[in-house]
Amino acid sequence: MCILMMHEKRFLHTMTFLQEVVDILMAYIVESFDRETKVIDFHYPNELLQMNNWELQDEPATLDDILISCRATLKYAIKTAHPRYFNQLSTGLDMVGLAADWLTSTANTNMFTYEVAPVFVLLEYVTLKKMREIIGWPDGRGDGIFSPGGAISNMYAMLLARFKMFPEVKEKGMSSVPRLVAFTSEHSHFSIKKGAAALGIGTESVICIKADESGKLVPADLERRILEAKQKGFVPFFVSATAGTTVYGAFDPLIAISDICKKYNIWMHVDGAWGGSLLMSRRHRWKLDGVERANSVTWNPHKMMSVPLQCSALLVREEGLMQNCNQMHACYLFQQDKHYDLSYDTGDKALQCGRHVDIFKLWLMWRAKGTIGFEAQIDKCLELSEYLYNKIKDREGYEMVFDGKPQHTNVCFWYLPPGIRYMEDKEERKKHLHKVAPVIKARMMEYGTTMVSYQPQGDKVNFFRMVISNPAATFEDIDFLIEEIERLGQDL
Amino acid sequence: MCILMMHEKRFLHTMTFLQEVVDILMAYIVESFDRETKVIDFHYPNELLQMNNWELQDEPATLDDILISCRATLKYAIKTAHPRYFNQLSTGLDMVGLAADWLTSTANTNMFTYEVAPVFVLLEYVTLKKMREIIGWPDGRGDGIFSPGGAISNMYAMLLARFKMFPEVKEKGMSSVPRLVAFTSEHSHFSIKKGAAALGIGTESVICIKADESGKLVPADLERRILEAKQKGFVPFFVSATAGTTVYGAFDPLIAISDICKKYNIWMHVDGAWGGSLLMSRRHRWKLDGVERANSVTWNPHKMMSVPLQCSALLVREEGLMQNCNQMHACYLFQQDKHYDLSYDTGDKALQCGRHVDIFKLWLMWRAKGTIGFEAQIDKCLELSEYLYNKIKDREGYEMVFDGKPQHTNVCFWYLPPGIRYMEDKEERKKHLHKVAPVIKARMMEYGTTMVSYQPQGDKVNFFRMVISNPAATFEDIDFLIEEIERLGQDL
Repeated sequence: MCILMMHEKRFLHTMTFLQEVVDILMAYIVESFDRETKVIDFHYPNELLQMNNWELQDEPATLDDILISCRATLKYAIKTAHPRYFNQLSTGLDMVGLAADWLTSTANTNMFTYEVAPVFVLLEYVTLKKMREIIGWPDGRGDGIFSPGGAISNMYAMLLARFKMFPEVKEKGMSSVPRLVAFTSEHSHFSIKKGAAALGIGTESVICIKADESGKLVPADLERRILEAKQKGFVPFFVSATAGTTVYGAFDPLIAISDICKKYNIWMHVDGAWGGSLLMSRRHRWKLDGVERANSVTWNPHKMMSVPLQCSALLVREEGLMQNCNQMHACYLFQQDKHYDLSYDTGDKALQCGRHVDIFKLWLMWRAKGTIGFEAQIDKCLELSEYLYNKIKDREGYEMVFDGKPQHTNVCFWYLPPGIRYMEDKEERKKHLHKVAPVIKARMMEYGTTMVSYQPQGDKVNFFRMVISNPAATFEDIDFLIEEIERLGQDL
Repeated sequence: MCILMMHEKRFLHTMTFLQEVVDILMAYIVESFDRETKVIDFHYPNELLQMNNWELQDEPATLDDILISCRATLKYAIKTAHPRYFNQLSTGLDMVGLAADWLTSTANTNMFTYEVAPVFVLLEYVTLKKMREIIGWPDGRGDGIFSPGGAISNMYAMLLARFKMFPEVKEKGMSSVPRLVAFTSEHSHFSIKKGAAALGIGTESVICIKADESGKLVPADLERRILEAKQKGFVPFFVSATAGTTVYGAFDPLIAISDICKKYNIWMHVDGAWGGSLLMSRRHRWKLDGVERANSVTWNPHKMMSVPLQCSALLVREEGLMQNCNQMHACYLFQQDKHYDLSYDTGDKALQCGRHVDIFKLWLMWRAKGTIGFEAQIDKCLELSEYLYNKIKDREGYEMVFDGKPQHTNVCFWYLPPGIRYMEDKEERKKHLHKVAPVIKARMMEYGTTMVSYQPQGDKVNFFRMVISNPAATFEDIDFLIEEIERLGQDL
């Protein structure tokens, strides 16, 4: 009895600790949404290393010490929910999504079998089907999986395309097949090349297709390069079209691409990691017209739908292919003599063995918002970006990186401080301009007022890439960003 | 002002909702540790689909509906923290780990750059270094990454081994290299073959090495098969030794294997996904003697160290190799003109682009327990399994699958119901015995009293594989398991 009481006392103590952490987290959430709070309390790595004792010890710390560690960790964290944090494609913090993620951690299980994750496996089934319906595949038929991020989803697609054309590659490897080539736009995500390197295809076998001024793949160039490859005796097996490029937010012309893929019998993948969510919007889904012709689609709800990180889906049109491609029949996990319907043991179609539960946060948010709720938040973010575009396109000191209204929430622009605005020497001007965005960004982080990304692209020097995926952002936050860029960049 | 107040009211409402979810989770946690509670309230998939409305709708649900969904999800979940849940290598629920995972969800960021995850990037650096020190690499030097599970960690290792020997494979693919072959024991994890299939090496190029009766790789057979492969003109490039096999819990003889790898200049990987944690125990770490000679090590703290799922590390001896192997220099993410030390932008060494924060729960648990706390909990689980072994090895109705004390917490055994105990026809007996474990397991799930895994292996018919990784389990729970197996299997 005495031991039992000790246990209970310790247990109560632990629950109190958990509640104390929750209180810290709640306070952090309130702060994160408060515009008076800094987006970041920035310190250089060597400083930050010295600001706290981060080292691991042999001896235990007290629970009070642990609470101090939690507070310190949050103090120096980026407030990714802050309405003025525009730095990444994933921003914001949805309370239902967060609650769902807390529940997921508490349930602490694995997606490989129905046996250990009955509800989550069913919810994955229901949600993937719904997503396939939205893509436009008849009755939502097909297959899919939630994977650890868009890069892995894209790699899955490439793996499936190769297996579909040459199933013997699974046993015999790449030496059994002719030289394969993949095609994707020069603006596409680097994960296509990364995947090709990993899968033993090689980055040189990823052929970069020209993009037009606004970042869309040029179909004529795609066809030309396919013919060129075939003439060399290579086998085109995979085209990755992008729905929402990372920098410009461009949507490749899917119908034209699908015609070419059909003509040459090539697997068509759509990397909609960033832009796939526009399928939820009646106003914007036309940008993905033709997606229903794809063989596979990457779609990351953790980006434009603000689902907590991470949540990425690969949707596949053909049923059974993933299973055949990846299964290894591990008999200690996928016993064939179990007492329930084994089609729910989906683990063997994955590259992973254990797989984190990423489904519940998406499913619960979808319940809470409904499809129309997601649509409204996506439409709102696109409205904000149009507002930004309209505000700066003719404003003194700004130049747009490409013409025309943004297709996604990406707005790409240069800010020219007065000092270089009228420089005559174009090369000199370019050289100066290249240094402007990094300095403004560094100052933003030091002041902690806002964060936005920048990069060069091709022959274009450093420019800002503004993206909006946080439904907590408002028109005033856009105004603030512009004021802040001018305040911090005026003297450059 | 009015809009602001509306916002505030809605915000308060949301925070109340979040606290209500926390209350549900707390109640679930208390239940999970209570032996009077069922491990699982089992229903067949088609039943479960009908027990709740799981479908996604166009219209939003109320927050009350959402709370109902949370309760329903937990009602049918497996209680993986339950002291009588022995079904997987990952069991238990650590309160500090859970709190850390809740904090991670709240911070909702990505591991790719210091810019967006300053603290977490530093903690990953500190923790990987500590793990390398424990492996025994001088000053903890080397490299590493937290990846989405042991299968991916093993795939990384194979990718690195290939790149180390033939760096041109990154650009030119497998067609530029001779036929590569990998070696691993017949008892090793299926992810080695899965990785080989994905990387374009092919499963036929993974040569399975004989294991002895207790499941350990036979070094003489390894050397013989390496020589055989070389004679055929193939290039041996990768040996994966297992430290803690999935079913038997066997530790391959690392020193003998490392001698062979050195002799033939082959990358030595140690898959310690399950057994790596024994490095934390002064009493048991000898089982991994020689691990310091490996080129890479997989070690999953989410298994034996009870860190919430998921948390898997790949440790690499050579610095810089991961970066060279995987980097693609995406200029929108890894800008070279940032204002801080870029060596902390570790994202380009990963296969993933976005990467979930898996480090904080491990780091915080390590702080809370200290190294000695992990040691104590690992030692305790091994003691429990020894207790089980001693209890059943001579008990009537039991047969051990292999002789000798378990090396890890795996105890593999057959339970023979009285009816087949004295069957003379060996084949008949085997046929009957094969069906015993699945029926007992199905009954366990229907009663919900406990769960333990079973599988066949090679020519051995279905047997139970007991594993213990939950520090909440006690000697009484082991006694209970045995009683329950006998109660449920008596009549078979």
